[in-house]
Amino acid sequence: MSRGYDVAVIGCGAGGYQAAVTAARCGARVVLIEREGAGGACLNRACVPKKALAHAASVLAQARALKGHGLTGAVSGDAGAMRAYEEALVADLRRGLPQRLKALSIDLVTGHARLMGPHAIRVTGAHGESRLEAHRVILAVGAQPRSLPACPVDGDRVVAADRLMALFGTEPRRLLCVGGGATGAEAAFLFREFGSEVTLAARGPRLLARSPVSERAARLLEQRLVASGVTVEKGVSVDATRVDAAGVTVRFNDGREGRFDRVLVAVGSMPRADDIGYRALGVQCDAEGFVATRETLETSVPGIYAVGDMKGGPMTAAAALHDGRIAGENAALGGHRRRNYHQVPMVIDSILPLAAVGLSEDMAERAGFAPEVVYIPYGGSVKARTQGAAPGFIEIVHDEETGQMLGGCIAGGSADELVHLVLAACRSPRGLWSLADLDYAHPSYGEELGAAVSAHLAGFMRTQPTVFRPGIYAAAD
Amino acid sequence: MSRGYDVAVIGCGAGGYQAAVTAARCGARVVLIEREGAGGACLNRACVPKKALAHAASVLAQARALKGHGLTGAVSGDAGAMRAYEEALVADLRRGLPQRLKALSIDLVTGHARLMGPHAIRVTGAHGESRLEAHRVILAVGAQPRSLPACPVDGDRVVAADRLMALFGTEPRRLLCVGGGATGAEAAFLFREFGSEVTLAARGPRLLARSPVSERAARLLEQRLVASGVTVEKGVSVDATRVDAAGVTVRFNDGREGRFDRVLVAVGSMPRADDIGYRALGVQCDAEGFVATRETLETSVPGIYAVGDMKGGPMTAAAALHDGRIAGENAALGGHRRRNYHQVPMVIDSILPLAAVGLSEDMAERAGFAPEVVYIPYGGSVKARTQGAAPGFIEIVHDEETGQMLGGCIAGGSADELVHLVLAACRSPRGLWSLADLDYAHPSYGEELGAAVSAHLAGFMRTQPTVFRPGIYAAAD
Repeated sequence: MSRGYDVAVIGCGAGGYQAAVTAARCGARVVLIEREGAGGACLNRACVPKKALAHAASVLAQARALKGHGLTGAVSGDAGAMRAYEEALVADLRRGLPQRLKALSIDLVTGHARLMGPHAIRVTGAHGESRLEAHRVILAVGAQPRSLPACPVDGDRVVAADRLMALFGTEPRRLLCVGGGATGAEAAFLFREFGSEVTLAARGPRLLARSPVSERAARLLEQRLVASGVTVEKGVSVDATRVDAAGVTVRFNDGREGRFDRVLVAVGSMPRADDIGYRALGVQCDAEGFVATRETLETSVPGIYAVGDMKGGPMTAAAALHDGRIAGENAALGGHRRRNYHQVPMVIDSILPLAAVGLSEDMAERAGFAPEVVYIPYGGSVKARTQGAAPGFIEIVHDEETGQMLGGCIAGGSADELVHLVLAACRSPRGLWSLADLDYAHPSYGEELGAAVSAHLAGFMRTQPTVFRPGIYAAAD
Repeated sequence: MSRGYDVAVIGCGAGGYQAAVTAARCGARVVLIEREGAGGACLNRACVPKKALAHAASVLAQARALKGHGLTGAVSGDAGAMRAYEEALVADLRRGLPQRLKALSIDLVTGHARLMGPHAIRVTGAHGESRLEAHRVILAVGAQPRSLPACPVDGDRVVAADRLMALFGTEPRRLLCVGGGATGAEAAFLFREFGSEVTLAARGPRLLARSPVSERAARLLEQRLVASGVTVEKGVSVDATRVDAAGVTVRFNDGREGRFDRVLVAVGSMPRADDIGYRALGVQCDAEGFVATRETLETSVPGIYAVGDMKGGPMTAAAALHDGRIAGENAALGGHRRRNYHQVPMVIDSILPLAAVGLSEDMAERAGFAPEVVYIPYGGSVKARTQGAAPGFIEIVHDEETGQMLGGCIAGGSADELVHLVLAACRSPRGLWSLADLDYAHPSYGEELGAAVSAHLAGFMRTQPTVFRPGIYAAAD
């Protein structure tokens, strides 16, 4: 049996789901093939369960901060109940997906997909094999955790980031998080707030080295983690691990040994072992094995697109959703919309909420701008003070010649929502002025943006926007 | 002794402070006269202390919601400690004001101001009298709580909204809040979370009747208050009160009687009894006695401006700050910038956080638009689910012919920050498309805006923005 579609999407994670929805909204007949539970890493193992845990951890941290200042009594984390709650939540959200696909007339097929040609897909499911034909194919199979030879995972004592939730359920007394990236910073916070002794071992000289988050923000995050009781080790890597019945002995590169109940290895991602046949069709990959794509997200094989973690670029759900919108539209309409990760926000839910979007100062310099950073400490923020929160800050990167907004980094409360306002300003042809002219709620974090930009503009060399350099934001307002 | 200034501002509340800062940034020599503690109602009695209490109350509510789902133990409110914390916070913020004024070379004079002529002010302070001359004068003396003849305040058992914090410190066992507006809705939440039995008596058929908050939002707020244990009575007013040593007996218009420890009267504002001399100079007032202003915030007397609660219009800190920016610039530069409250967000920090900006559906119809409301329930919001929050929603009001964004109302988490994004879209010449084209963090509340607008635009009659009607937002991007 063979069925013909305009667009076939392989993998129903964040990127694949969004690609299918976008293509269907563009009028395409769409099939979505998923081998196991729909939702991908984001829903099942990463963003969604982590956000639920981060919320609970944040309530714990806030209750602690208010103790003696308005709150009495004490709450503590119950990892077992949290895990059950999170699992029920994920299952419920997963159950809703098929209906949402059906409402858009997207066919959902369960089984393992294999590319038999640029337009032919074989699906092996519980009920046997079927074949699908599609004019265009969007690959969205994700990635797998990068392994660390000195620290092999056994799925029990030593686990990778895709088993973070199961690890959470074991309530480790002493946990080692290997990796100073976003996942390590988030995990250290979650486990610490739920009562674990946590050591975070980062290989480089700073946390979040490979993210667009500024160095100042990374430093403040580290201070906060340390203040909450996390041991942060920088410039440290693992030389060897020895697992026994009671725990794990870890030898570090500086010769020290540590003893832990469990170890979390969170050192990034690598391509999945099974390429589902795309290499045989001539789809080119980069040096690390990730699928190479053009700006339209088309691979080297015409009509085959790739989105999300399986290709090079930022590996966040927001980036995968961005990919899905671009590739879904291009595949459905044969268009040439281009990806632009400068307009995709990145969020880290740790003890200090972080968000960044657009160009950092370094990136802006490399792109030929004359970047200037407006630093807005929350120390004077009325809202930050009323939240009893240790202060954070906002950094706004702009071009000092034109006032064009280039990017920003937010450290502190509501970062995951406020980042959208920074992004809207980056896309505005009025640049910094778009933030200065806005009226803000009071007290709010947003008003700090307005006040700082207004004060800065008072001494600015130009009094109104000039023509901004195009091309930084693909679809500027 | 007489000193000459370009601009004199009388009253250092939110509006007066902002007017002075704006005028100084425009290059004017500015004097700011304040009779008591700087900061006005917002800092000393309203927004700021309420925001601190609302944060603590919200942590209490969130901890309760997570009980059994990840948190064990229990926290409860400690009103005494909260009050001490809030007082220290307010005092600290107040101490910072003079330095911020000094940094802008604004003279701060303490004492009672009296207008002796359109350019002459007498200040009576602790060290005697002085006289100031100013080319232009900005009045910013605020308002006072509206009194209710059947419910006279005694400052102890029966208090007005300006004594809300002192009332909070008394830890009433049974509290009656008279008034179904923003202050009543906020107070009912704060006192309830800190352990009081609360009755909220609203005169009209719905809460928040005079605010731009939609009826659906008001209904949901009422449901949440009731679910938290607040008794909400609508269509009820007070006929008589009898205070004795142990409490207050209140007779309602339906004949019932209630017994309370304390009563909070929160039924709006009226002009201050002392007009500091502006009526004698010919400054005209409206029927209620509030100062009448032109769109430039100039009063009927040339060169005298009025901002904030003392004039007609919305009585929020955000509106006063808006006034301050407009009047400060106009007074300093002799300009003609016009106020526009459609671009001023309104926030209510109750058990259901609420925010609204721009035109409601009714207002849009009256303004000659063809309004359509996109209703975005948070029921499907991943972030709302991960927060364990009872769901809220967003309503987006736009013109169905052009896609121009006209306003919005947010009920639920992060409303006080997300409202800025709605406002930025209202000011964008791309209207609804500005929200559809944005990339959002995932999971976030912001992404619900994007998803709903994208789905809506798929069936929209136009495929790109047309020319929007000007004049709704004074300074559209």
